[in-house]
Amino acid sequence: MLISESTLRSFTENIFAAMGCSAEHARLSADVLIKSDLRGIDSHGVARLQGYVRLWEKKRINTDPDLRIVHETATTATVDGDAGLGLVVAPFAMKVAIEKAEKYGSGWVSVRNSNHFGIAGYHAMKAVEKDMIGFAMTNASPLVSPTFSSERLLGTNPVCYAFPAGKYPPVIVDMATSAAANGKLEIAQRAGMQVPEGWIQNKEGEPTTDPHALKSGGALLPLGSDRDHGSHKGFGLSATVDILSAVLSGANYGPWVPPFVAFLDPPNDPVGTGIGHFVGAMRIDGFRPVAEFKQHMDNWIHRFKSSATIDPNQKVIIPGEPELEAEAARKLSGIPLVEAVVKDLNEIAGRFGVELLRS
Amino acid sequence: MLISESTLRSFTENIFAAMGCSAEHARLSADVLIKSDLRGIDSHGVARLQGYVRLWEKKRINTDPDLRIVHETATTATVDGDAGLGLVVAPFAMKVAIEKAEKYGSGWVSVRNSNHFGIAGYHAMKAVEKDMIGFAMTNASPLVSPTFSSERLLGTNPVCYAFPAGKYPPVIVDMATSAAANGKLEIAQRAGMQVPEGWIQNKEGEPTTDPHALKSGGALLPLGSDRDHGSHKGFGLSATVDILSAVLSGANYGPWVPPFVAFLDPPNDPVGTGIGHFVGAMRIDGFRPVAEFKQHMDNWIHRFKSSATIDPNQKVIIPGEPELEAEAARKLSGIPLVEAVVKDLNEIAGRFGVELLRS
Repeated sequence: MLISESTLRSFTENIFAAMGCSAEHARLSADVLIKSDLRGIDSHGVARLQGYVRLWEKKRINTDPDLRIVHETATTATVDGDAGLGLVVAPFAMKVAIEKAEKYGSGWVSVRNSNHFGIAGYHAMKAVEKDMIGFAMTNASPLVSPTFSSERLLGTNPVCYAFPAGKYPPVIVDMATSAAANGKLEIAQRAGMQVPEGWIQNKEGEPTTDPHALKSGGALLPLGSDRDHGSHKGFGLSATVDILSAVLSGANYGPWVPPFVAFLDPPNDPVGTGIGHFVGAMRIDGFRPVAEFKQHMDNWIHRFKSSATIDPNQKVIIPGEPELEAEAARKLSGIPLVEAVVKDLNEIAGRFGVELLRS
Repeated sequence: MLISESTLRSFTENIFAAMGCSAEHARLSADVLIKSDLRGIDSHGVARLQGYVRLWEKKRINTDPDLRIVHETATTATVDGDAGLGLVVAPFAMKVAIEKAEKYGSGWVSVRNSNHFGIAGYHAMKAVEKDMIGFAMTNASPLVSPTFSSERLLGTNPVCYAFPAGKYPPVIVDMATSAAANGKLEIAQRAGMQVPEGWIQNKEGEPTTDPHALKSGGALLPLGSDRDHGSHKGFGLSATVDILSAVLSGANYGPWVPPFVAFLDPPNDPVGTGIGHFVGAMRIDGFRPVAEFKQHMDNWIHRFKSSATIDPNQKVIIPGEPELEAEAARKLSGIPLVEAVVKDLNEIAGRFGVELLRS
C-alpha cells in the first residue's frame, strides 16, 4: 500500500499524541520515523511504531519526560532522558551539542535513560543544516557476539557521520557496526531464503546460513564477519559506540541493554538507566572557511563518483546517495507499506480512536 | 635478532638526529617508532625508518619544521605540519587537543602538510594518561578501492579510540579501516602463501587470493570485503577518516595523498598539502566522575573477558590486550628484528656514521 507522506505523518502524530506526548513531542517523534520511511530505511520507520506503543504500555517509555542536563562543561554534557522516547531525547541532546558548538567550536553529549532513537542519520544531519559535521550513535539490545564468543553482548550499535557538501548533497555515513542488520535477516526469513555465510552464527557459535538461527540462540556477527576478515575491528567499533553512549553517560551497556521488544523483560541487575546515545557537532569554520571545505567536498565526491568501476552498470555509491534518491521518489509517489505493517498500525489506531490508514 | 629497547631507542634517535632533527624531535620520533615495535606492530616501527630517510633524502620531509596553528576556536584547531615528520606533527596536534580539553572539556585538531605518523594508538593514548578519551586517525597512500570500483582511491586510513579503565588496562581500539593491513600481505608474499578471499582484488576488480596482486594494479578491500558483507561500511569509515583528516584541514585526500614510498612521486596536481591527520581528546569528568567511569569500564571489560567462548582455548580479546602483552614481553626480552630490517638499518647507520646495531 502506498501512503502519502502527509497522511502517514498525521497518522503517526495522532498515535504519539494518544500515548500522551505533547503536540511538540508527537510532531518530532513522527518526524524522525517518517524521515526513516522516506529515506527507504523501512525497518526504522512506522514499522516500529507498535514497538514503541508496547513499551509504553509496559510503562517502560515515559511520554512526558523531564529532559535535563545532569552534568556539563563548556563543550560536553550528560543528558538524562527520563525514560522518554529516544525520538525526542536524542533531538534534545543534539540541540545541546549544536548550541555548544556555536559558542565553542564543538559540542558533545552522552545520553542515559533513553530508548530507541530511530535512525542515527536523522540526528547527525541536524548539524549539517548548520554547516557543522554531525555525529550520532546509540547502543541497542544485545544481538551481536564479539569475536570468539558465543554470547550476544552487543547491539548492532549504529553510528552516523554527516558532512555538508556544496553543489552535491551531504555525505551521510549511517551504518550498523554488525556485518548485516537484523532487518535483512527478517527479509530472508519471510522469503524462506538462506543468508550469506558471515552474517550470523548459531547458538554454539558455528557459522550458519539459516536466517532463523538468531531466534534459536544464535547471534549476528560484527562487521568483518570472522577474525580473518577483521571481525575484531567490527567488535572494536561496536565497543566504542557502547562505551561512548553508555559507560560515559551512566546508561546500561553490553548485555545489560534493555531489549526493544516489550515481551522480553530488561535484565534485573541493571548497571545504569535505559539505553545510551552519543551525539556531537563540530563547526566547519572552526577548522577552515565553510566555502573552501564545501568546494573540496564537492571535488572529493566528484572524484569518487566518477572513478573506474568493475561493472559498467554499477557506479560507485557515495554514502547517503541511495537514501536521498529514495527520499526524492517517496516524497512524490508516497511511502510503500507492507500489509502486515498496515494491519498493525490500524490495530493500534482502532484501540486509540485514531483515524485508520487507507490507501 | 633480539635488540633491547634501550639500544634500539638510542640507535633510532641517532638516525633522526643525523637527519637534522632537534634532540627533542629525535627523541619523540624514536619514541613513537619504538612504542610500535614494543607493542608488536612491527610494520610501523623501526622497519619504516628507511622509508622516512628516503623521503627526507628526496626533500619531501622537513626535519626542522615550523609547527603552527593556522586557525582555531576554543575547542577546534587546524595545524600546519610544515612537511615535518608525522611522528612530531601528530604529538604537537595532540598536545593542542589536550590543552583545549583541559580548558573547555574537549579539543579537536585537524592536521595538514604532514607525513606518516606511526601508529594511531600512540597519539590517542596520550589522552588516556590525562583521564581523557583519545581519538587519532590519519589518511594514507591510496591502496584501497571503494565498493564497486577498480581504482585505488583510499589509504588503509586507520583510526584509534582509547579509553582509560581502572584496575584493567585501557581499552585501545586501533585499526585500519581495510579488511587486512598491507603488512599481512607482505608476510604472505615472503612465505609464498595465498591470502584469504576478501582481502584484495586484482587490477580488473576481480576477487583474488594472490598476495602479489597489489603490486600489479590490484587493491586492498575495505573492511567488510564485499557488498554482501558490508564493504560499503568499511568504505564509509575510510571516507570519514579521509574527510576529517584532509578535507577539513587542507591536506591531500583520496587518490591525491602522496605515497609513503619515495620511489613513487606525489601527484603533480595536489588538492592540498601533505597528508592529513585528525586527533581529539574529551575529558571523562566532562560527562561523569572519573572514578565512576573507570569502575564501569572495569565491569564492561570483566563481563566481555569472561563471556562464553566458542573454543575453550580462545578467550574473547579486549581491544588493546595483545599489544599490551607484547609490550610487557618485549620490554623484558627485547625487540625481535628480521634480518632484512637489520641490514637496512645498518646500511643507513653506515652512511650516517651512526654506531651499527649488533645482537
